[in-house]
Amino acid sequence: MRDFSSDHRWLSINTATVRKQRGEPWPLPKILDACAARGIRAVSPWRDQVAAAGLAAIAAQLEALDLELSGYCRGGLFTYTDDASRRAMREDNLRALDEACTLNAPCLVLVVGGLPGALASHASGGAPGRPAHRDIALARTQVAEGVAWLLDEARTRRMPLAIEPLHPMYAADRACVNTMSQALDLCDALDPDRSGALGVAVDAYHVWWDPQLQAQVQRAGRERLLAFHVCDWLVPTTDLLEDRGMMGDGVIDLPRLRGWVEDAGFAGYSEVEIFSRANWWQREGGEVLDTCIERHRRCV
Amino acid sequence: MRDFSSDHRWLSINTATVRKQRGEPWPLPKILDACAARGIRAVSPWRDQVAAAGLAAIAAQLEALDLELSGYCRGGLFTYTDDASRRAMREDNLRALDEACTLNAPCLVLVVGGLPGALASHASGGAPGRPAHRDIALARTQVAEGVAWLLDEARTRRMPLAIEPLHPMYAADRACVNTMSQALDLCDALDPDRSGALGVAVDAYHVWWDPQLQAQVQRAGRERLLAFHVCDWLVPTTDLLEDRGMMGDGVIDLPRLRGWVEDAGFAGYSEVEIFSRANWWQREGGEVLDTCIERHRRCV
Repeated sequence: MRDFSSDHRWLSINTATVRKQRGEPWPLPKILDACAARGIRAVSPWRDQVAAAGLAAIAAQLEALDLELSGYCRGGLFTYTDDASRRAMREDNLRALDEACTLNAPCLVLVVGGLPGALASHASGGAPGRPAHRDIALARTQVAEGVAWLLDEARTRRMPLAIEPLHPMYAADRACVNTMSQALDLCDALDPDRSGALGVAVDAYHVWWDPQLQAQVQRAGRERLLAFHVCDWLVPTTDLLEDRGMMGDGVIDLPRLRGWVEDAGFAGYSEVEIFSRANWWQREGGEVLDTCIERHRRCV
Repeated sequence: MRDFSSDHRWLSINTATVRKQRGEPWPLPKILDACAARGIRAVSPWRDQVAAAGLAAIAAQLEALDLELSGYCRGGLFTYTDDASRRAMREDNLRALDEACTLNAPCLVLVVGGLPGALASHASGGAPGRPAHRDIALARTQVAEGVAWLLDEARTRRMPLAIEPLHPMYAADRACVNTMSQALDLCDALDPDRSGALGVAVDAYHVWWDPQLQAQVQRAGRERLLAFHVCDWLVPTTDLLEDRGMMGDGVIDLPRLRGWVEDAGFAGYSEVEIFSRANWWQREGGEVLDTCIERHRRCV
């Protein structure tokens, strides 16, 4: 297992971690500058942040700062209710793929979607919609179909896809792939040769509770382990989405999990992704990044 | 599958559903009267409610009203940090067993505990404690040891134990048994003969998301299916503990799940258990019970 204690060369910052400090959006160019100034070598930006700054400008800035991506957030949301919504979903995923290519991402992260209509959307003013149905098995079938379709497009572009199993508390609205086992079953069905074109993003927050976690990380192996995300599970957790903890402040045994992931062959970045409305998003962005560096050395 | 549409003979009320209406505790004797007055034949009371009213008085009232139990809430919380806390845990579980016997419960429901120290306790004034460690594998080992010990005591008293897998969002503080598969592995290890002494409580809220659910319900079979709890998963869910929905208001396909459970041999009560600080606990208790009856007929 790599020693992280004396430097932060394997730290990546998911840019949602500092996306809105004290109520003010931190624009992506400012986040990238702040990361580079601290010797952080990698980031994982979100599509809306990239769009706000301009794809070409971000690509140029990344190159100028010698920053690389640990992933691109995100494609997916494959579930649909009709032909029109399926078509819109596919077009959006193709755009995500092309953006990931432009930014030289190592993978496009997939949050696969839950029951269609359930997720808060910009179109609905941020309000959650009413799910169109209760058939999670149907949603899972549509996800398998969606990943299969996108994989063909992704292979053409040589852009790996990383399915991110989300915590079961997001099964209804965000992702109906909820365990490593389920994600890897999908990988095995669609990419039996373990070509590297399809794998998983292992996010400690989503999977730490799983009794099968160690076995499934081993099963994934190097070819399927495309990303590793860290933060912490707080006790108590006061919000289902925006109360993630800084590494070391919660109950996840991160070094143990990183040991399993590295034993299985992963040698990439530990990407910090923290949504924290009441705590970390209320602090000065530089303080958050400095804390990520310190905790990365001591708690990951 | 039984037809629930024309009566509510298979409805049971978990008494937490109406435990504190509009900020005022509804005492258990009042809840029992209100249930009996509506032709509800079964309840599942909580230990603190029974203790407040007196065990003998509740036993007499149940008999007088011809009410039976669908389960008794609850034993468990098996994880510990030292000999003293282990001893206190065991003594408390023996009291729970004896109370279950006095009340002629069909089973004692087990919420097995998470990381020791994490759960809000009366001793700590209701504030969550700081977990004593991050080793969920150790917690699981202690749970297996605790269930094994209690099972011996329960066999002597002929009181079945029902392990309730809790949603993974409670893994840290309430129960580190989080899937049917995990609970049934424990049952198979400790009761390989499927004697009826050890089984599971299937709560739709905790397990609805599980891709293995149908297979695991089949695996459980009649001997292991000791209780069936219903409520609904709301979108959005605004609180991890006290924002459960009334059946029909959320995304769980309850009839489908009940069909699986009954196909596997279960023929007991559908027990309604709703913790709802902002909605159902703010209503008049009789209205809540009437709604449970109506939804039981239409949505379960």
